[in-house]
Amino acid sequence: MQDAMESSVPEIEIWFDLASPYSYLSVMRIDDLAERARVAVRWRPFLLGAIFKSFGWDNSPFVLQKEKGAYMWQDMARQCRKQNIPWTRPSTFPRHPVLAARVALYGADAPWIGAFCRGVMLRNFAHDQDIATEADVSDVLNALVLPAATILAAAQSDENKSRLREQTDRAKSLGIFGAPTFFVRGEMYWGNDRLDDAIACARGLASG
Amino acid sequence: MQDAMESSVPEIEIWFDLASPYSYLSVMRIDDLAERARVAVRWRPFLLGAIFKSFGWDNSPFVLQKEKGAYMWQDMARQCRKQNIPWTRPSTFPRHPVLAARVALYGADAPWIGAFCRGVMLRNFAHDQDIATEADVSDVLNALVLPAATILAAAQSDENKSRLREQTDRAKSLGIFGAPTFFVRGEMYWGNDRLDDAIACARGLASG
Repeated sequence: MQDAMESSVPEIEIWFDLASPYSYLSVMRIDDLAERARVAVRWRPFLLGAIFKSFGWDNSPFVLQKEKGAYMWQDMARQCRKQNIPWTRPSTFPRHPVLAARVALYGADAPWIGAFCRGVMLRNFAHDQDIATEADVSDVLNALVLPAATILAAAQSDENKSRLREQTDRAKSLGIFGAPTFFVRGEMYWGNDRLDDAIACARGLASG
Repeated sequence: MQDAMESSVPEIEIWFDLASPYSYLSVMRIDDLAERARVAVRWRPFLLGAIFKSFGWDNSPFVLQKEKGAYMWQDMARQCRKQNIPWTRPSTFPRHPVLAARVALYGADAPWIGAFCRGVMLRNFAHDQDIATEADVSDVLNALVLPAATILAAAQSDENKSRLREQTDRAKSLGIFGAPTFFVRGEMYWGNDRLDDAIACARGLASG
């Protein structure tokens, strides 16, 4: 016998920025963790830089606070080693995520969204390649055997550009201040270090 | 047969501020975790507020960034529940840690250091009581059957006050930007979320 809760698939929202190091750790793991937990992933790309601007910051805190930035690069190397995720420290940081974010928003409900986001982030954080241009993003789409030109055109429509601005405004209104941020059953979880707790909450294993 | 590494007791340094919420989570756990791992704890109290001032901030980021502060209180409640640590959201934040930090520095190598720090932090984060005054700190010392007046006098000597300033300068020079921060084998680990990794590193179980 199933009750109403059990018959609906539990969900986790991942709010992420494709240029954010700690988003990389979660983007690489979430599909696998969620599948094993039978939880559906809702992909919510947004532009963290716009949130930082709203705080009066003109760059990432990892650039503005040099001690925190220096630590982050050590921590990322260790975390990638621990979680078996490929890692090369990017020679440019942060990379420009707007075009890739537009594609991710356009494809947020498509079956290729997870693979696309992993592809973009592997370029940046495993292969030290740019992600900013149509050529960069096309490479990722082509590797997935997707119609790159069609997708890029749709992603760069005025309507989709507006949607990305609205999604970022929505992130701000939800109180998001960093990435990745997860929402499960109305509870907010900030940071890759909370992904497992957020999945457990979605499965109903924790009270949130 | 023992080699030189095995015959020396591995160590973990905990750099912490007695008014810092995430320091509370680690201060409450570290003696137990370290004992089970046969790792020695080196207690390094410092004043995080002075580090923040060096960044140009006149208060905790949990106060200056209201979104981050709002999230932190939710996260602390959840983390305490998960780790079985008592929790009451303090009605005043941040509380004034200077006197308690002077005592902690004075007693850093004494057998009562862990119990003293837990006592101070439980006042703040479990019982919502002040920690700033001689009466507050005496309560903690008295509960441990320690000579409060003698310890308070020594802690407030000019020499010990200078040592706390020097310890905080040392934190700054080590690149510490938040608390708790752990050092093990020269590796820096920031945040309560890294305590287990830091202990594993001290035991030689991780490459750091």
